[in-house]
Order: sequence, then C-alpha cells, then structure tokens
Amino acid sequence: MKVVVLRLGHRYGRDKRLSTHVALTARAFGAKEVVFDAVDREVEESINAVSSSWGGSFKVSFTDGWKKYVKNFKGDIVHLTMYGLPVGKVVGKLRKSRKDKLVIVGSQKVPSEVYQMASYNAAVGSQPHSEVAALAVFLDRLFAGRQLMKRFGGRIEIVPQARGKRMVENR
Amino acid sequence: MKVVVLRLGHRYGRDKRLSTHVALTARAFGAKEVVFDAVDREVEESINAVSSSWGGSFKVSFTDGWKKYVKNFKGDIVHLTMYGLPVGKVVGKLRKSRKDKLVIVGSQKVPSEVYQMASYNAAVGSQPHSEVAALAVFLDRLFAGRQLMKRFGGRIEIVPQARGKRMVENR
Repeated sequence: MKVVVLRLGHRYGRDKRLSTHVALTARAFGAKEVVFDAVDREVEESINAVSSSWGGSFKVSFTDGWKKYVKNFKGDIVHLTMYGLPVGKVVGKLRKSRKDKLVIVGSQKVPSEVYQMASYNAAVGSQPHSEVAALAVFLDRLFAGRQLMKRFGGRIEIVPQARGKRMVENR
Repeated sequence: MKVVVLRLGHRYGRDKRLSTHVALTARAFGAKEVVFDAVDREVEESINAVSSSWGGSFKVSFTDGWKKYVKNFKGDIVHLTMYGLPVGKVVGKLRKSRKDKLVIVGSQKVPSEVYQMASYNAAVGSQPHSEVAALAVFLDRLFAGRQLMKRFGGRIEIVPQARGKRMVENR
C-alpha cells in the first residue's frame, strides 16, 4: 500500500514553512511522495536535503492540474477535513482495502469538488486545528503506529536517548 | 489529568502561523492551556477567537521565565524531541502516573537544559518533521484517541458528513 499526499492551495512564500512541515510529516509517517499544486523549488530543495541526509526514497513533485491528477489516481482518495466522518470510523475500511491511498490536505479553503471526488472525507476531530496535525494523526492511525518505528537507513541516524542527543553517521 | 503545552522559542512574526497551529492543536487534542515564552497578542487573539466560537475553556498565556515555570510545574514534564525515547515506550508510564503533564515543544533549537529538566524526553519518530505533528500524535496517544471525540459545546458545531459541510449554530 503506497501513500501519496496531495497538498492543495500552496501559496508561494506565505506557505513555505507550513508546506515544508506537511511534506516532512508525510515522509516521517510513511508516505512515499508529496505532490504540490504549485511549484516551489525552495520547499522542494529543503525536503530533498532532509531525504539525502536522513534516508528513504521520498519524492517531491508538482502538478499543474490537480483535478486530473486526482481522477487518474488508482486507489482510495482520502480528503482530510474537519467536516468529514470521524477518522476512527474510516481508517479500518482504508486499511482493509489495501489499495494505494491519495491523502488530500488543503490549506485555508478547499474547492468544493474535492469533497465530491474523495472516496472518503475524514475528520481528525471536528475542531479547527492544523493540516499538519491532521495528516500526522491520520497516517499514524492508518499504519497503526508502525511507520514511526521504521528505520530510514540514512547517512544520519538518531540513537534514542533518555537525555541528550546521540547521532551516528553511517558511511 | 490536566495537560499544559509550553511552546519554547516563539519568534514574533516569523513563527505566527506555526505557533497558532501548535496552540490550536493543543486545544483540539485535549490540552487545557498553552504557554508561550514570548508575548504575541495576534496569536493570542486568533486562538481566543476560535475558543469563543467553538467552545471549551482553553487558555493562552505567556511567561517571561520559562525555566522557573518548568521548575514550579507540579506534574510530569514531557519534552518532545526526535532525540528522545520512542513515544510508545513513554506514554504508558505517563498515563499511569495520572499527574498533570507539561508538554514542551520547541521551534528550531531547544536549550540543552530542557533535556535535563524533563521527566521524559519523548520522540514521535526519530526523523525530522514538525512540532505540530509531534504534539498531535503525542496527545492522541496519551488520551488514546478519546479527546478527538469530545464535544466542546461551542456556539458553532460541526455535524460530521460523508460529503460536504454541515454546521449548527447553538444559541
């Protein structure tokens, strides 16, 4: 089961940090790729710099036609929105289907077509908070916490410590 | 068990949006209060505006002496850092202790004293991602998903839908 995250509504400059957090969260929680609907080479570079040090094969890409991208995606389309059905009710079905997943996260406002195109509109709580938080909790639950334990096999790795920092460099 | 989130290293202007996401995530996932180490009335106002529409009794406050604040806190001090012990190993103990929790989340770099002052340094994965993601997953696991189902009793409430948006206004 491959997970791809589609970040809609990225605004150049203004959303740089939040979109970077979305992408790094996607990577750390087990997605294989993030797709943006607007080109931002700075965001791309900072994500790729993380991957090149920390490992894995996470991909950053761009689409100039997100509707077509969604339509052509083979698998379940999950739109994370606080208006949707509770994530706890959705995640079991998603796990069972074993199809690839496209997880859509918006920024401020998402076009209404997204609600229609989605196989599932899933809410990580019905309170306003953060697309980064929603994505993290959704993926953590989808993978039942296992992805967080995965090793990425990068040049740099952390050795978990009760106190302080310990890293190893693999050559 | 009361949960307070301490956000360290907030920089006025630059961190406005991320700190707002941290605070809204704290609120939505069951914390009672967020404490910043720098005054930012804009962030405060936007959080309070959410609480006044959406309910609950979430509090935003500021401290000009975070070390003293941490020392005087009665309960478990949990520092979220990718260098810490896996969250899965820590969360059971935290739940059992039933003490109040102070959850510390930094921005870029956290002073080394924090690692020493913490009862637990807990890692939501050992990969770089986002303090918003870390906080969300930590609280989701601490409360075993229950907080996400809690109703806040606000003026505005969402009625979960398979498609589209439905809200009710309580008067």
